[in-house]
Amino acid sequence: MRYGDRLGKLMTLMRVHGIENFLVTNKPNLLYFAGIDGPAALLVSFNLERPVLLVPPLSLHAAEEYAYSGLEIRNTGMNARFEVVVAETLSSLEGSVAVDEVDIDTYKLYSTLLRDGEIRQGSSVIWELREVKDEEELQAIKRACEVADRAMRAAYETLYPGITENEVKAEILAEIYRSGGERPAFDVIVASGPRSALPHGPLQRPGSVDRALSRGDVVLIDLGAVIEGYHSDVTRTFFIGKASDEFLMAYRQVLAAKEAAEAYIKPDTHCSYPDSIARRKLEEARLDQYFMHGLGHGIGLEIHEQPRMSPTSSEVLAANMVVTCEPGIYIKGKWGIRLEDTVLVTDKGAERLTTFSLQDPSIDV
Amino acid sequence: MRYGDRLGKLMTLMRVHGIENFLVTNKPNLLYFAGIDGPAALLVSFNLERPVLLVPPLSLHAAEEYAYSGLEIRNTGMNARFEVVVAETLSSLEGSVAVDEVDIDTYKLYSTLLRDGEIRQGSSVIWELREVKDEEELQAIKRACEVADRAMRAAYETLYPGITENEVKAEILAEIYRSGGERPAFDVIVASGPRSALPHGPLQRPGSVDRALSRGDVVLIDLGAVIEGYHSDVTRTFFIGKASDEFLMAYRQVLAAKEAAEAYIKPDTHCSYPDSIARRKLEEARLDQYFMHGLGHGIGLEIHEQPRMSPTSSEVLAANMVVTCEPGIYIKGKWGIRLEDTVLVTDKGAERLTTFSLQDPSIDV
Repeated sequence: MRYGDRLGKLMTLMRVHGIENFLVTNKPNLLYFAGIDGPAALLVSFNLERPVLLVPPLSLHAAEEYAYSGLEIRNTGMNARFEVVVAETLSSLEGSVAVDEVDIDTYKLYSTLLRDGEIRQGSSVIWELREVKDEEELQAIKRACEVADRAMRAAYETLYPGITENEVKAEILAEIYRSGGERPAFDVIVASGPRSALPHGPLQRPGSVDRALSRGDVVLIDLGAVIEGYHSDVTRTFFIGKASDEFLMAYRQVLAAKEAAEAYIKPDTHCSYPDSIARRKLEEARLDQYFMHGLGHGIGLEIHEQPRMSPTSSEVLAANMVVTCEPGIYIKGKWGIRLEDTVLVTDKGAERLTTFSLQDPSIDV
Repeated sequence: MRYGDRLGKLMTLMRVHGIENFLVTNKPNLLYFAGIDGPAALLVSFNLERPVLLVPPLSLHAAEEYAYSGLEIRNTGMNARFEVVVAETLSSLEGSVAVDEVDIDTYKLYSTLLRDGEIRQGSSVIWELREVKDEEELQAIKRACEVADRAMRAAYETLYPGITENEVKAEILAEIYRSGGERPAFDVIVASGPRSALPHGPLQRPGSVDRALSRGDVVLIDLGAVIEGYHSDVTRTFFIGKASDEFLMAYRQVLAAKEAAEAYIKPDTHCSYPDSIARRKLEEARLDQYFMHGLGHGIGLEIHEQPRMSPTSSEVLAANMVVTCEPGIYIKGKWGIRLEDTVLVTDKGAERLTTFSLQDPSIDV
């Protein structure tokens, strides 16, 4: 059973890192180790016979329905603050404590109550496990990528002068649900014209809610789907009508940067290296000053995970990591281009899990 | 200008609480004070001539386009870790520092670099401002509620045996975008049959992706929309066909509990009081053991905000707070009922901002 297996590996790592008790409250971590997404707190401890899942009454049915059967479920009741019950439970245990997520006040509360002093940030220990996906996780991610491809196809087919960004978004969401997606992986970006130069798309402001597409517009579409908690992420950039030479040249440079970077997405490569390859390729085309973000990010139970594929990343790629490769350039007031796929790191190199065509951005209208 | 006004109020509160520097990195707080949603860090300080907005290159265009003009924008560049630049900037300032959101490692990094020692959790100071909505905020929330009402109407009109939960969700999302919504306020819940007894709806598991509605099913629909960053939240529960007597009796009890609680949603009332009223009403009907969560929550730039309307809340209601009122009962393996509106606290009492009919849950099929 995967949860038992993961908890066993966590306890091995806890021994390695000298952690006697681990408190997990972050939702994706709860999904990973316990099979439910909270609110809840999972306590993995060498002081306990088996891991304890503390749940407020709100989560009780979900815990009974979905949680790993190897856990002891404890209902914390309606009349006490959840964090206080968690803190009391922690304070009864011997030895060092690591947590995955906590705000300052709760950190101070735990520190005061703990027998043996300091609380440690344990996220990096959990990332050692979560970064590398197992077979069940890869199956879910691959299906989430198929749904994303279908949603991109549905969006592509709507692109015509007069349709609005919001209408394209509605079509994307409908296709995600039709294709069996659990939900969109994030707020879909459909950014047209000069709005495509905003990497995360426009913010809604009075009078700037929606925008209709016109011939000559660039349209950047960034979407993803979730299957069984696992995310996908894909971006394509289109041109309404026959693409201008200037746009097409830039598009081909971004695509070349992406392909060059992907050639270095393989085990034992530093995560900053493919980024530097893409950046150098764009530098040759004098476009590197417009590439204003990292190359990509890990993806799984969260849309943005470890490892980061950026200039400041200190990690190393390994087989069965899943990351995005998404170089982009953004020319203010004009347009943006981003091309992104979700890719699997294999011993043979990068395998694209999203596969919508990258060849021709022009939309015949 | 609203941002200047809010920053002025923040600095007044900083004086009151003895805070010389405030570091804001939480996204809704950035939207509230700076007009952009990050990633970015806003530094409000008595050491600075005007507030400084530190932005990674990714956020630069958005900052130039949307950020409050009274801020000094500083680009942190591609080659340094953002948190390190922020920490360095902090370390150059005199006096106490409060932050709104920080993980343990960053907390320790800041603490080490700071001249005057401890970092404080300052969220409660910001909540003093954000809990009470100004006129512009109320306008956005009211429009978000209108969009939610339209989406609930669209969902209602699809309810017929054979349609699946995902098909209903697709209709809801399409209507949110058609009505000018920026995005859904959260992952829409459409939970039918025994799945309605899970307060947050089912988790997707292999073989349990979607579900078709049948005559005799209860369907719980919880949805919301976002307008200019502001959220709405509404839940209705329906019965496919003529509702059974048992269901109808429970439905009326939940509705009575909601109405009783709303009569006490008014200024100067403790936030735990309306919850206790709803709980007592359900106790009279012997249904209180199925009411397994708090009565509601504040709503605004986030879907769940302060104040919490729960048994353990220590806050007091004030005019122009916006909260949800959402009693619910969940009978495992059978069905759940939740009835929720977004309500405005006024001097005259609670005003429902979502208005979809609560009278008759039966769907004539």
